[in-house]
Amino acid sequence: MRLAIAGAGAVGRSVAQLAGDDGHDVTAIADSRSAAVDPDGLDIDAVLERKDSEGAVGTADPEDALAAEYDALVEATPTTLGDAQPGFGHVERALERDRHVVLANKGPVAERYGEVTALAEDSAGEVRFEATVGGAIPVLSTIEDYGPSTITAARGVLNGTANFVLSRMAAEGLGYEHVLAEAQDLGVAEADPSFDVEGTDAALKCVILANVLAEDREYTLADATVEGIDAIPPSALELAREDGRTIRLIGEVAGGEIRVGPRLVPEQADLAVTGTTNIVQLETENAGRLNLSGRGAGGPETATAILADINRLPRPDP
Amino acid sequence: MRLAIAGAGAVGRSVAQLAGDDGHDVTAIADSRSAAVDPDGLDIDAVLERKDSEGAVGTADPEDALAAEYDALVEATPTTLGDAQPGFGHVERALERDRHVVLANKGPVAERYGEVTALAEDSAGEVRFEATVGGAIPVLSTIEDYGPSTITAARGVLNGTANFVLSRMAAEGLGYEHVLAEAQDLGVAEADPSFDVEGTDAALKCVILANVLAEDREYTLADATVEGIDAIPPSALELAREDGRTIRLIGEVAGGEIRVGPRLVPEQADLAVTGTTNIVQLETENAGRLNLSGRGAGGPETATAILADINRLPRPDP
Repeated sequence: MRLAIAGAGAVGRSVAQLAGDDGHDVTAIADSRSAAVDPDGLDIDAVLERKDSEGAVGTADPEDALAAEYDALVEATPTTLGDAQPGFGHVERALERDRHVVLANKGPVAERYGEVTALAEDSAGEVRFEATVGGAIPVLSTIEDYGPSTITAARGVLNGTANFVLSRMAAEGLGYEHVLAEAQDLGVAEADPSFDVEGTDAALKCVILANVLAEDREYTLADATVEGIDAIPPSALELAREDGRTIRLIGEVAGGEIRVGPRLVPEQADLAVTGTTNIVQLETENAGRLNLSGRGAGGPETATAILADINRLPRPDP
Repeated sequence: MRLAIAGAGAVGRSVAQLAGDDGHDVTAIADSRSAAVDPDGLDIDAVLERKDSEGAVGTADPEDALAAEYDALVEATPTTLGDAQPGFGHVERALERDRHVVLANKGPVAERYGEVTALAEDSAGEVRFEATVGGAIPVLSTIEDYGPSTITAARGVLNGTANFVLSRMAAEGLGYEHVLAEAQDLGVAEADPSFDVEGTDAALKCVILANVLAEDREYTLADATVEGIDAIPPSALELAREDGRTIRLIGEVAGGEIRVGPRLVPEQADLAVTGTTNIVQLETENAGRLNLSGRGAGGPETATAILADINRLPRPDP
């Protein structure tokens, strides 16, 4: 399949590097200020070297990538809230051209889900977004295969940064600020970690789950009740531990409600994953609980989910 | 979609009962000595009541179910080894008629995988068999979506009966025979438990995984190195426990080898699931390890996997 990639960060780069292994050609890639386009397939190594040395993937305009010949657009620009731009506009243009869209960007499907599905209904293209929830973990594909109406609730640990901080605090008895600084040193937390530690990122993933599971309404971040981990003292973790429990940032979608916040969970529970691991539990109507866990972030991990989505798209006519 | 169901045990019955929720019609169902057929869709409650009261689903010949009008055959007769009959014959007939086949029966894809895939290649019908490995857990669909060549190894706890026995022995310090009798009382183990406790069932699932993962050869049960749990003394579990470990019956497919046997695993490890839970770990080339766990057996659980497979089949032309 011919792929155009919007976004040349860790995810966009990994998709470009791995696409060839699955037999795909990358015909266009754009960063925020430039693009490289070749209808016969780009030389990815050369493009990424240029990005590293000159800070730009090419000499074309980013718009040229969106106008290029491709079968599926990979939308891997940073997640934005509210109008979810520029990601939403990229999705809109691709669907209006009857092209498929595979999203790593959470914005369009968390903040403007109804508009995205309406555009997809009028398009010969399909929209898939496995990579937006739980990285490499096959959450949305499982919900799709089971049928959303057979899933009665979803919950899990959906932010690796917050989980790393909480599990380190619990294991070492250290304070929040200390562990956060350590996480920043390790590259597990960003310089501004608020999106992760305040629960926004986990909430967006829960909103996407809620949109997929809901039959009759649309959710946005404004519908989620969100509390972060930044106010948890080590003493709370110590108290939990004395009772055989620990604290995790749990997101839950159940009964039409979306809630994200620190929760007490048994230390032996499936939800008490450690480090940056993510887990999603799906409660099913007829098959009990499914636990799906793995790496919830990272370039190759997220690219793996994107390529799995591409694998599920209908093949283009030869 | 119109479904024909071969087998009216727990799995076949559950498929029949749940198919309507997904909008499917069951046009035929067969047990070992009779069949009920209705091209407009059977009254499932009436058929299953008849099975309960008279021991037969209908008055037609089982052959009539295989000759009926349907889009997909659900093969849910008991797993047999060697020639995998009569299941293999059912698969063959359906594919020769260009119909889809969804298997719960492990025999045809464990013992005659090459023949099944060759038949499918010559057919307009597809073959799916998610229900044969790990019950409701989405193992084969995940491998399919990721691409088999990106999975470097698979291992897990694939037999709920053996796991129930081992985890009860470990938790209670009881002997094998005692716990097995308890499991039989609870309906977790069959009167003849050898298929489960000797590792054959787990090995068949590993053979199926090996067949799906292999690119260049076919595996059968004869290729698996299998050891059961029937010779494990409580003292071995006690020794393991003193070292923070426990024993689980682990099946593993890696480097072209299939091995099933009791293994020491850390008590906190993901593989140390308790009770009848199953878990599968997939080692991926680019996304680390995925853990997928849930209920590995049971009528509605297995039926859920079958219906998920049906959900992935191409829709018939209207």
